[in-house]
Amino acid sequence: MPSATPPYTYLTKGDSVIHVPKGFRMAGVSCAIKASGKKDVSLIVADEDAVAAGVYTQNKVVAAPVVLCRERTPGSSARAVIVNSGNANACTGDQGDQDADRMCQVTAKTLGISPQQCLVMSTGIIGVPLPMSNVEKGIQLASEQLGDSQQHFLDASDGILTTDKARKIASCEFALGDRVIRIAAMAKGAGMIGPNMATMLCQVLTDAPLDAKDAQAVLARVANRSFNNISVEGHTSTNDTMLLLASGKAGGPKLTGAEIDAFEAEITTLCIDLAKQIPTDGEGASHLIEINVSGAASDVDARAIGETIASSNLVKTAVYGSDPNWGRIVSAAGYANCSLDAQQVNLSINGIELFRQGQPIEFCEKSASRSIAENPTTVIEIVVGSGPGACTHWTSDLTVEYVRFNSEYTT
Amino acid sequence: MPSATPPYTYLTKGDSVIHVPKGFRMAGVSCAIKASGKKDVSLIVADEDAVAAGVYTQNKVVAAPVVLCRERTPGSSARAVIVNSGNANACTGDQGDQDADRMCQVTAKTLGISPQQCLVMSTGIIGVPLPMSNVEKGIQLASEQLGDSQQHFLDASDGILTTDKARKIASCEFALGDRVIRIAAMAKGAGMIGPNMATMLCQVLTDAPLDAKDAQAVLARVANRSFNNISVEGHTSTNDTMLLLASGKAGGPKLTGAEIDAFEAEITTLCIDLAKQIPTDGEGASHLIEINVSGAASDVDARAIGETIASSNLVKTAVYGSDPNWGRIVSAAGYANCSLDAQQVNLSINGIELFRQGQPIEFCEKSASRSIAENPTTVIEIVVGSGPGACTHWTSDLTVEYVRFNSEYTT
Repeated sequence: MPSATPPYTYLTKGDSVIHVPKGFRMAGVSCAIKASGKKDVSLIVADEDAVAAGVYTQNKVVAAPVVLCRERTPGSSARAVIVNSGNANACTGDQGDQDADRMCQVTAKTLGISPQQCLVMSTGIIGVPLPMSNVEKGIQLASEQLGDSQQHFLDASDGILTTDKARKIASCEFALGDRVIRIAAMAKGAGMIGPNMATMLCQVLTDAPLDAKDAQAVLARVANRSFNNISVEGHTSTNDTMLLLASGKAGGPKLTGAEIDAFEAEITTLCIDLAKQIPTDGEGASHLIEINVSGAASDVDARAIGETIASSNLVKTAVYGSDPNWGRIVSAAGYANCSLDAQQVNLSINGIELFRQGQPIEFCEKSASRSIAENPTTVIEIVVGSGPGACTHWTSDLTVEYVRFNSEYTT
Repeated sequence: MPSATPPYTYLTKGDSVIHVPKGFRMAGVSCAIKASGKKDVSLIVADEDAVAAGVYTQNKVVAAPVVLCRERTPGSSARAVIVNSGNANACTGDQGDQDADRMCQVTAKTLGISPQQCLVMSTGIIGVPLPMSNVEKGIQLASEQLGDSQQHFLDASDGILTTDKARKIASCEFALGDRVIRIAAMAKGAGMIGPNMATMLCQVLTDAPLDAKDAQAVLARVANRSFNNISVEGHTSTNDTMLLLASGKAGGPKLTGAEIDAFEAEITTLCIDLAKQIPTDGEGASHLIEINVSGAASDVDARAIGETIASSNLVKTAVYGSDPNWGRIVSAAGYANCSLDAQQVNLSINGIELFRQGQPIEFCEKSASRSIAENPTTVIEIVVGSGPGACTHWTSDLTVEYVRFNSEYTT
C-alpha cells in the first residue's frame, strides 16, 4: 500500500516559496480549545478594506459562523477573518449565534475595526458551546503576533486544522500585464464532520484588485471546479466555508475582462491543487481516487455520475484492496439517475482498458491490480455516452482505518 | 457487540410453519456454478397459468434476465421462474441476452410449456458468461425434484442465495371472507453487487386470485414500502428484481375493492419483515439500523432524508462503535436537499432523546452507548419539521468486517 502522505511541498508548480499576497498579516496560536495543545486560533487581517467573497455549505443545518459570513459577503470592506478549530460552534442554538457574534466583537475591538468588517469560521466538535474565555484569549494572543512572513502564513494554516495529518496550502505568483499578482490559500479537510473532526474550510488570499461582484462570481466558478468536486465520505458538513479576500495591493485599477479570465485560470489551478490535498489526506485514506467522467449529456450529469461513483463504498473498498473491479464502477454510474448508454460505456483504470462499448475485455488482472497497489493515485476514466458533458471528481478510498477511526470514538 | 445472526424463524407473526401457497411446486439444486457446491439453481413452477407482476432495478445498466422479465410482466400466463445464483449474467453483452433466453427455452422444453411463460433471474458475479452446460443440467435436475412441501420451498430459497449468511423467507396465512389465502416469499441480499456477491432478488408466491393489473399495482406499492426502503451500502444493482406470482388456487373470483386492500395489508407486512432481513444480514453488519423520519414536507422528502442518513458512512460507523452521535445524523438530514426546519428538529436513539427543537439536550452518554451496544437493532427517530411526510428506512452499520470483505477479494 502506498503512503498516504502527500508529496506536496508548499505550493503548486513545484515552487518552494509561499507567495504571501501584499496587504495581509496573519497569526496562528494555541489557546487550549484543543486538548492536544496544538494551534487552534488563526487570525488574518487586511491592512485596509479588502474585497471579500464567500461560498458556503448547502446543508440546511448550518453553523452559527456560516450564518454570519453569509450576511457579510460579498463585500468591499472586510478587515479580518477569525477562525477557531477544535469546536465547530454548530448545533449550539442561540448561544452559538451569540458566540459567533462575540468572536467578531472581540476581534474588532482588539484591532480597532468594526465587527461588521470581521468574518468568522469554526471547525471541530459539534453540539458543544465554544469555550469563549479561551477563544477570547486566543484572539488577543493572535492579534499580538500578526506578521506577513511565510512563517506567519504557516502558523495561520496550522491553526485551522483538526484531524488533518498534513497541512494544506498552495500559492502562486504570476504577471498580469505589468502587475505581479500573488495568491496564497490554506484549507482544512480530513473527515467532513463529527466529534474530533470537521468540515472543510478554505481561505484564499490575493493582492489582485477585484470588484466585489467579480470576486464573488470568480469564487463561485472556482469552487465548482475544485472544492465542489472532492469528497471523503460525501457527508456535506454544517460549516463548509470558502472565502476569497482580495487586498488590491498589487496596485492599479480593478481587473476587467481578459485580466479576470487570466486571474480565474490561475486561481482555479491553485484551488484544484489545494482541493486534491483533502481526499489525499482523507481519514484512513490509502489512495487518492481521480474519476474522469466524459460523454455525459451535460456537465451536470457528468458531475452526478462522478459523485455517485465516488460515493460507492464498493468502489472505494475495491481501490483499497487494489481490485480492478470495473463492475462496481459501471453499475455505480448506472444508478446515478442520469442518461447513460450502456452500449457506449468505456472504462479504464490507470490507463488499462477494462471495458469497451458495454462489454468486458480481456486484461491482465495481475498487472492492473499491481498498478493500483503501487500508485498513490488511482485514475478512473469512464465514458458514458457521446454527449459533451465532462467532470473530474477526487475522493479517497474506504479503508479499515477509516471505519476504525470513525467508530472508535464515543461521545 | 450483539450477534449479527437474526432471530428470524421462518415466518412473520411468530409462526413456525411455511404456508406454501397452493398451485406451486419448487426445487433447489446444485449444479456447480458455485465453487462451494452449495445450491445454485432454483425452479418455481405454477401448475396452471399464473398472474405475474414485477418491479425491477432503476439502474441504467441492467442484466440480461431483467430485460426479459420486464417484457413478460405484468401478465396472466406465467408458468415458471428459473433462477441461478453464483453468476449474475450482467455486463455480458449479446452472449448474456442469448443465455437468458436459453435458460427460458430449456426450462420451457423440460416442462412442456412456452418460453414466453418463463421468467428468469440471475445473481452472482458480473461480467462473466454463464456456464450454460452447468445451468442446463441444473434446470433438468430441478425439474425432476419439484414438489410443494415446506422442504421444497426451503430448497428453492437456498438456491437463490450468494454471500447471504442466513436464509431469508417469510410466509403467512389469513382468511379473506370465507377464503384462506397463503403468501410465501423468499429473498436474497447481502451486498448489492460485485464479484462474489450480488443484487437483491425476491419472489413472492400467493394463491390469491388476482387480476394482473391489480397484482402489478399492489406489488409496486408494496415494494415502495419494503424493499425500496432498505440498503446495505446503497449500491443499486444491475439485477434487482421482485416478482409476485399469483396462482388463484385459493379459489373463488378475483379479489376486488376491500379484498385487495386487505390482501395488500398482509403482503406489505410480510414484505417489510422479509426486507428487514436483508440489512440485518448485510455484509459484516453488527446492527440493523431503523430510521424513522417524520415531519417532512412529503413522503418523498421523508424517503430522501431517510436514505441520506442511511447512506452516511459517519452515521453507520457511529452505530458500529455504539456512539450516540446525533450530530452526524442531524447533519446528514440537513444535506438531503429537502426542506428541513433546523429549529424544529427532534432526535432520539433507542427512545433516548438527544436533540430537541434544534438544540442538544443533556443525556447520559454511557447508557445511550450501552443501549446501542446491547441491542441488535438501533432505532433512530428524527422529526425534521411539522409536515405530514414520513418514512421508515432500514440499513446496516458499516464495520471493519464490511471493508475487509469488500476489499480483500481481487479479481
